[in-house]
Amino acid sequence: MRTTKTTSATRRIAILGSTGSIGESTLSVLDHADDLGEADFEIVALTANTNVEKLAEQARKYKPAFVAVADESKGEELRSALADTDIKCGAGAAAVEEAAEMETDWVMAAIVGAAGLRPTLKAAQRGADIALANKECLVCAGDVLTAAISKAGGALLPVDSEHNAIFQVFDFDQPERISRLILTASGGPFRSWTKEEMGTATPAQAVAHPNWSMGAKISVDSATMMNKGLELIEAAHIFPVSHEKIEILVHPQSVIHSMVEYVDGSVLAQLGTPDMRTPIATTLAWPTRTSSPSAKLDFAEVAKLTFEAPDLIRFPSLRLAREAISAGGIMPAALNAANEVAVASFLSGGIKFLDIAAISEQVLDRSVRLNGPATLSTLEEAMDADSQARRMAEECVAARAAA
Amino acid sequence: MRTTKTTSATRRIAILGSTGSIGESTLSVLDHADDLGEADFEIVALTANTNVEKLAEQARKYKPAFVAVADESKGEELRSALADTDIKCGAGAAAVEEAAEMETDWVMAAIVGAAGLRPTLKAAQRGADIALANKECLVCAGDVLTAAISKAGGALLPVDSEHNAIFQVFDFDQPERISRLILTASGGPFRSWTKEEMGTATPAQAVAHPNWSMGAKISVDSATMMNKGLELIEAAHIFPVSHEKIEILVHPQSVIHSMVEYVDGSVLAQLGTPDMRTPIATTLAWPTRTSSPSAKLDFAEVAKLTFEAPDLIRFPSLRLAREAISAGGIMPAALNAANEVAVASFLSGGIKFLDIAAISEQVLDRSVRLNGPATLSTLEEAMDADSQARRMAEECVAARAAA
Repeated sequence: MRTTKTTSATRRIAILGSTGSIGESTLSVLDHADDLGEADFEIVALTANTNVEKLAEQARKYKPAFVAVADESKGEELRSALADTDIKCGAGAAAVEEAAEMETDWVMAAIVGAAGLRPTLKAAQRGADIALANKECLVCAGDVLTAAISKAGGALLPVDSEHNAIFQVFDFDQPERISRLILTASGGPFRSWTKEEMGTATPAQAVAHPNWSMGAKISVDSATMMNKGLELIEAAHIFPVSHEKIEILVHPQSVIHSMVEYVDGSVLAQLGTPDMRTPIATTLAWPTRTSSPSAKLDFAEVAKLTFEAPDLIRFPSLRLAREAISAGGIMPAALNAANEVAVASFLSGGIKFLDIAAISEQVLDRSVRLNGPATLSTLEEAMDADSQARRMAEECVAARAAA
Repeated sequence: MRTTKTTSATRRIAILGSTGSIGESTLSVLDHADDLGEADFEIVALTANTNVEKLAEQARKYKPAFVAVADESKGEELRSALADTDIKCGAGAAAVEEAAEMETDWVMAAIVGAAGLRPTLKAAQRGADIALANKECLVCAGDVLTAAISKAGGALLPVDSEHNAIFQVFDFDQPERISRLILTASGGPFRSWTKEEMGTATPAQAVAHPNWSMGAKISVDSATMMNKGLELIEAAHIFPVSHEKIEILVHPQSVIHSMVEYVDGSVLAQLGTPDMRTPIATTLAWPTRTSSPSAKLDFAEVAKLTFEAPDLIRFPSLRLAREAISAGGIMPAALNAANEVAVASFLSGGIKFLDIAAISEQVLDRSVRLNGPATLSTLEEAMDADSQARRMAEECVAARAAA
């Protein structure tokens, strides 16, 4: 664990996306630590996408200086809900960015999707520690975000259970002594299906994830294992190791959240129950620890952990992700965009399950041919790559519909 | 991992017990690190119990300033074997202590049994880092050794795979944030035997350990699970947590070597192949890492890890060990001595398998009645407790033979 940084007495906190699942879990960890007298924090800013009712309720409880709702049309509703308080209210994308720019020590970046890119980057640029729960920041714009964090001197604290696990046992003082990162994967609902069976998989079958309850898009990513591919891309940005040293291991029980192997043969792992409050608590208290309300592991109840190598034939997304991070620059953004379009089409009945990876691969190949080894230094470049890939993916989807 | 200490450029090393399995593994790790240019070390002293031939061979290869053989009668043989070198030779217990007192930064304490107590203590008293592979130092004289290490400022680096695992993931900066240590146990050869079956177990059945190849005494300790009880006692000395927070978990595959649970719900574990060169390498390079020649874990090959709660009815030694460390002072030394006598008697056909724990319990109870809460501040007190317990255990053995 990185232990070079000391924490100030009172930690000033902003939660971007406070009404979502990660945002609410963050507040529950803070409540718990507060009850135990283990944390001294001040919530400075909270933001929501559209849920003004919940945001106003949180604002009354935590009394931040500023709250913002991304949906501009909800601004008036927010202001009137908090009219009897001295909490400043804002609405629209600029207001969310304003929340990110307020002076805080620690920012939970839990806005879902591309909307999270700019506010997270703003927080990173002013040197806050970033608890990162947004996938797109690293998948689409990893080079941009990590450069901003390095330059401003904050810490990147991954919230995702796999990366958080690696973070906890990764010795940043001697990355050259690390021989492998082992990213564990549940294998998803189709882990033991044949390729033929996968060919006829329905959206309902694809969204039935065995261990975690998640949204439809992420569930399909778990079924294709693209989620693990995207995590591989994220890991290559977070940790100073080459992607060749990052392995994926299927571990259906998801108890071991991921591992780091050192050159002496030691494999260090983090294990836990499937409760996001544990990784959130570790990012919140880092470099110390704070209690969390999550359930503790009962090993006698767990009883059995199993492992198997991933099948790159049935799950080509794993290969595609490695090709994208290997190509670097805008390619992961292109792959991510193509996958998003393909998954949406699959969910609405437009294409078959195996077409998701096939279309992603077509778009990635075309993008490499068109753009060559395009580097990535601004968010705009990432957005352009995203748009271009989306257009190409839509074409592929349309071609299949016409066929 | 403790990272407060910096290493000097060249690490001066003494290996006490260099011709045994741990000693030889230590030299092989040094060779490996040397080949890779990862370690800069100088072997200053080597000692052996009786194996002069191997000791002389090691001396010719590593050119230490001093070598000692514990068996006084082998002194001449050693001197004549190295007559053409300028390596100083010694023989007898005092010579081994002299080796421990030579100026070195790191000492591998790998002498087996009570003979290891005094030399290890000498090395600790002058402030060397102690890589501890001797069980008796902590089981019989834990208070004495840890006080000496604290006073002189060296580090205690456990070599035993379980304690080494905990050491790697134990945050010494915040022990109050640790909720549990989980000491894994293979469960030994009688893990799934009934108490009735255990009642008729033969020495040959008891020494058949499933995962590690070990001597007869340690194998029987594995069969009674007293080995895990003694490790519980050691852990309570090594780590600043109460023994109540140390749990034992049966994990037959012995891949997870042990674990630490933090208050946030994170369980950190160290895993590896059953190769002592991994923990030795971690103690050698601490607080950095060095390569080791040990085989790496292949998770797809491992395939399955299982866990179950230990059965304190069939394995009362676990309860006895907890009672002994709870009573403190000389009681662990008394338990250890009683167990040694009982195991020896079992191996020579004197008593039955279940008598081992029964006799240990009788002696522990009697020792508590006789000595009350006797504290432990010198090796002599530990030796006296050991002798007293041995006498009591011999009486118990004789009483059973007469019955």
